[in-house]
Amino acid sequence: MNKNADAILLVEDNPDDAELTKLALSRHGLEGRVTHVSDGMQALDYLFRRNQFANRPGSHPVLVLLDLKMPLLDGIGVLKEIKSSDQLHNIPVVVLTSSTEPSDLLRAYDAGTNAYIAKPTEFSQFLSAMKHVCEFWVNINQTAPPMATAGVRNTGFGELL
Amino acid sequence: MNKNADAILLVEDNPDDAELTKLALSRHGLEGRVTHVSDGMQALDYLFRRNQFANRPGSHPVLVLLDLKMPLLDGIGVLKEIKSSDQLHNIPVVVLTSSTEPSDLLRAYDAGTNAYIAKPTEFSQFLSAMKHVCEFWVNINQTAPPMATAGVRNTGFGELL
Repeated sequence: MNKNADAILLVEDNPDDAELTKLALSRHGLEGRVTHVSDGMQALDYLFRRNQFANRPGSHPVLVLLDLKMPLLDGIGVLKEIKSSDQLHNIPVVVLTSSTEPSDLLRAYDAGTNAYIAKPTEFSQFLSAMKHVCEFWVNINQTAPPMATAGVRNTGFGELL
Repeated sequence: MNKNADAILLVEDNPDDAELTKLALSRHGLEGRVTHVSDGMQALDYLFRRNQFANRPGSHPVLVLLDLKMPLLDGIGVLKEIKSSDQLHNIPVVVLTSSTEPSDLLRAYDAGTNAYIAKPTEFSQFLSAMKHVCEFWVNINQTAPPMATAGVRNTGFGELL
């Protein structure tokens, strides 16, 4: 397992949903390794180390679990900021939402999400989904080195840059 | 589970490694649902329905498992083609390679891979990794609708388009 102090950044405005997700993650070895923020602006402040997070310790999270519908800045806005940032674009983001709307799926993938989970409403199924999130994204997936050293990255539109 | 006829496209030039991966995937419910191609050009032919795959049935795979080092067109070349294509860019791609070189990780993420697995050399660990791949990417992850209908997608450089 990656030994980052904060393994997962959880971005979720609903306090009950956040508690439930933290509980599920703690059952799979992530107790004390989840940082929760409750809107998109705070998520970016955390990732960019701004404002109340200017002096936070630790490196990037190995995963951002991102709700879509939030105040101030929604999940799609957060995704666009992360995926267009030279500092942050390689951080894996998994959307975690109650929405199964095709338009939300399309907007999330178009904005660069690495994966998309429609939250199961049944608690046992939700626990199981979080178990698989931990197993794949924390224990198996390899994250990129923290600092980009490869010059201009490929955007798929390199000829325009 | 998504009911696509072909759940996974496996892109791997080493026949022994391909057999091993197919065996591991078949143990986790994907028997007969993996298409194997052995180089990057064949992978793109399959995805774009060109040449020998012009008349293939079925929709996009729910996942592309992609080796990096291959003849004709390597994994990074395939990734760049997929992620810059309006037709294909939303298909999840997981790099599956023996390389743990930071430069390969960085190039893969910069080219837009959704995730990166460094193949365990121990067979039991490899089986376990493939189990988690199936559980997350086939059973839990929601793929985007097959056809983009949302106009110009976000590339992170929208203002340049």
